[in-house]
Amino acid sequence: MKLDAVVAGVGMTRFAKHPDKGLKELGREAVELAIADAGLGLADLEAAYVGNCAAGLVTGQESVRGQVILHPMGVGKIPIVNVENACASGSTALLHAAIMVSTGLADVVLALGVEKLTHPDKMRSFAALAGAMDVDELNAMVADLAASSAGAEGGAGRDRSLFMDVYAIAARDHMRRYGTTKEQFAMVAAKNAFHGSLNPRAQLRDALTVEQVLADRPIVEPLTRAMCSPIGDGGAAAVLVSGRKARALGIARPVRVTTSVMHSGWTRRDDEPDTVALCASEAYEEAGIGPADVSVVELHDASAPAEILSYEALGLCAPGDGGALVASGATRLGGRIPVNTSGGLLRKGHPVGATGIAQIVELTEQLQGRAGARQVAGARVGLAQNGGGKKGNDAAAMLVTILRT
Amino acid sequence: MKLDAVVAGVGMTRFAKHPDKGLKELGREAVELAIADAGLGLADLEAAYVGNCAAGLVTGQESVRGQVILHPMGVGKIPIVNVENACASGSTALLHAAIMVSTGLADVVLALGVEKLTHPDKMRSFAALAGAMDVDELNAMVADLAASSAGAEGGAGRDRSLFMDVYAIAARDHMRRYGTTKEQFAMVAAKNAFHGSLNPRAQLRDALTVEQVLADRPIVEPLTRAMCSPIGDGGAAAVLVSGRKARALGIARPVRVTTSVMHSGWTRRDDEPDTVALCASEAYEEAGIGPADVSVVELHDASAPAEILSYEALGLCAPGDGGALVASGATRLGGRIPVNTSGGLLRKGHPVGATGIAQIVELTEQLQGRAGARQVAGARVGLAQNGGGKKGNDAAAMLVTILRT
Repeated sequence: MKLDAVVAGVGMTRFAKHPDKGLKELGREAVELAIADAGLGLADLEAAYVGNCAAGLVTGQESVRGQVILHPMGVGKIPIVNVENACASGSTALLHAAIMVSTGLADVVLALGVEKLTHPDKMRSFAALAGAMDVDELNAMVADLAASSAGAEGGAGRDRSLFMDVYAIAARDHMRRYGTTKEQFAMVAAKNAFHGSLNPRAQLRDALTVEQVLADRPIVEPLTRAMCSPIGDGGAAAVLVSGRKARALGIARPVRVTTSVMHSGWTRRDDEPDTVALCASEAYEEAGIGPADVSVVELHDASAPAEILSYEALGLCAPGDGGALVASGATRLGGRIPVNTSGGLLRKGHPVGATGIAQIVELTEQLQGRAGARQVAGARVGLAQNGGGKKGNDAAAMLVTILRT
Repeated sequence: MKLDAVVAGVGMTRFAKHPDKGLKELGREAVELAIADAGLGLADLEAAYVGNCAAGLVTGQESVRGQVILHPMGVGKIPIVNVENACASGSTALLHAAIMVSTGLADVVLALGVEKLTHPDKMRSFAALAGAMDVDELNAMVADLAASSAGAEGGAGRDRSLFMDVYAIAARDHMRRYGTTKEQFAMVAAKNAFHGSLNPRAQLRDALTVEQVLADRPIVEPLTRAMCSPIGDGGAAAVLVSGRKARALGIARPVRVTTSVMHSGWTRRDDEPDTVALCASEAYEEAGIGPADVSVVELHDASAPAEILSYEALGLCAPGDGGALVASGATRLGGRIPVNTSGGLLRKGHPVGATGIAQIVELTEQLQGRAGARQVAGARVGLAQNGGGKKGNDAAAMLVTILRT
């Protein structure tokens, strides 16, 4: 939908395994950074949307996660709304904050995404990720995989996330259909590792060669560990304001959220376009732009093959050309259309509920020319793609959001 | 905030312990009833907001609860947003559906509240309810109560919900301060039992005398079991449409959601007004009405004393006069201002996430003159009060919503 929300400030924690920080500390840190970045106070907030996915199953904290974070900070007497959409919880929160300020229902609204995914008992983290699928279907799938050789090879079962099995099936299909290679998947991971090495807030900061990615521990063919996003904790926040408020604040070169399109893909038939493509085509049309107008992209590379699929769905290249696109260097910093300059989910990390807003943090800083060593010269249009709740090759919630300066 | 959303259709399951029905079945039934009531098809939906509180901890289904319910019904390719605000999850979903159609962002939006709270392992239900408090503070409170005589008497601990301890403290305070009696609390329960006996969708349909309420099993002084809402399962749905769509559909006597005010109360100081009162005063002002203009009220009687406190906060009587108000019969069917004609949470039941929308179901049917044996003659203005996430005497999320014909 068409929106007109100005990003007044952004902030995020480093994404990492944070054994010493819980949901409250991670959330607070992100909010304080975003509020300070906006030059506003907590008392200016008129509403807050909080995206989280896993706290219920990881920490036992359900239902009032936003209040539990914001109340000790003194934020109250405003609507605090907890939203959840698996890995797209953060962008769902952002969308609703943008709706509030775009429609004039509020002038200053917080969007917070936060996740405490790590737990001394790893089973809790895996159970939480499993909760983002249809649990009835999941149980059937676990039984299927356990009975198959892929399952035996990958050690599939409830002892780890099954998302990577889903991604591996899509990757093998792309290889078969288009001749995409395992090396090309490794190029995505190596590129994002290079970007992540430049990002102080990334969970994984080592640069990696294509050879190192290929030599990493196998997960499910063709995925190695370096082609899969890590489990981690973190928070990311954005303060959105109305155009009226932005003028009052004298924001000189505002970054605007102009469009966000959301669809659920679970009912898609095979002969219908991919849900990323559906969201993207609607978003481009609403924004009156095409893929060639986009300066910088943050997309949902929960696995390396997912990035290649998204290149195609977002129209950055023709169908089947995703492998060649990454091989050409076009999506690397300095290339024609840099993708995941933050390091992406693969290297910046993927604390589920925080991811969608962390993408907005990166794009805002890019469009404001303050991305430091990761700066894309002359960035004017940013695109974020964030999806959650996998089933087959599609998502329960997919969002494509466009930011412009 | 001011809204202009037309209720095109409503529907709900019977609230009950439904051992044979899960989240999907309960949600589907409510949605099908609401869609049929609206005379629309599922394909007309442009977005859906789904409120649920406990599925994560009760069933393991997190993150994509709405999709899991709606996808098998063929609802996809629209934004499906999962919202959570403890016992106020349903009204939070309704508010957002109303925002979408009031602002013209959509013409037909579903609000669904659904809860599968019962489980063969009762501990799961209690853990889920505990997740609606600050779990860190909860653990401290359990320790305190276990050490106190009230705790010993009431059997407090993680083996049952602590919400009733919180309500009992408020009840004893009201008795001390205003001379409210245990009999008056029992009158609330007996009145709502009478109303519930007339409601085929109520979980508890026995009529109760004041004496029977007082003689029921003690929970925490002054509460007996009949003064506490039961644990149950259910779903409730409303289809909201824009004014434009309502005209196109030719809805003859539309019921409109004109105002919904939401606040978080956890930061309230003792010298500040109760959060119910804060929401109500803003809602009355925005709607341009006063308490005397309200025809029928559905309020959050999770316990009988809560109803008396809400009478006062909603301005149905002066502070301290809530006990006398129920004793006068004014809030009984046929009285000046009937309250909880559905039976309320006490008797209709309280499947947490469904409650806020079930209130809208009752009020809509009242304002449309189709409430059968429970009909309030000439009802023109309905008020719903729904709160969630208790801490002390205040809520993490409180909503007051006004409907008018």
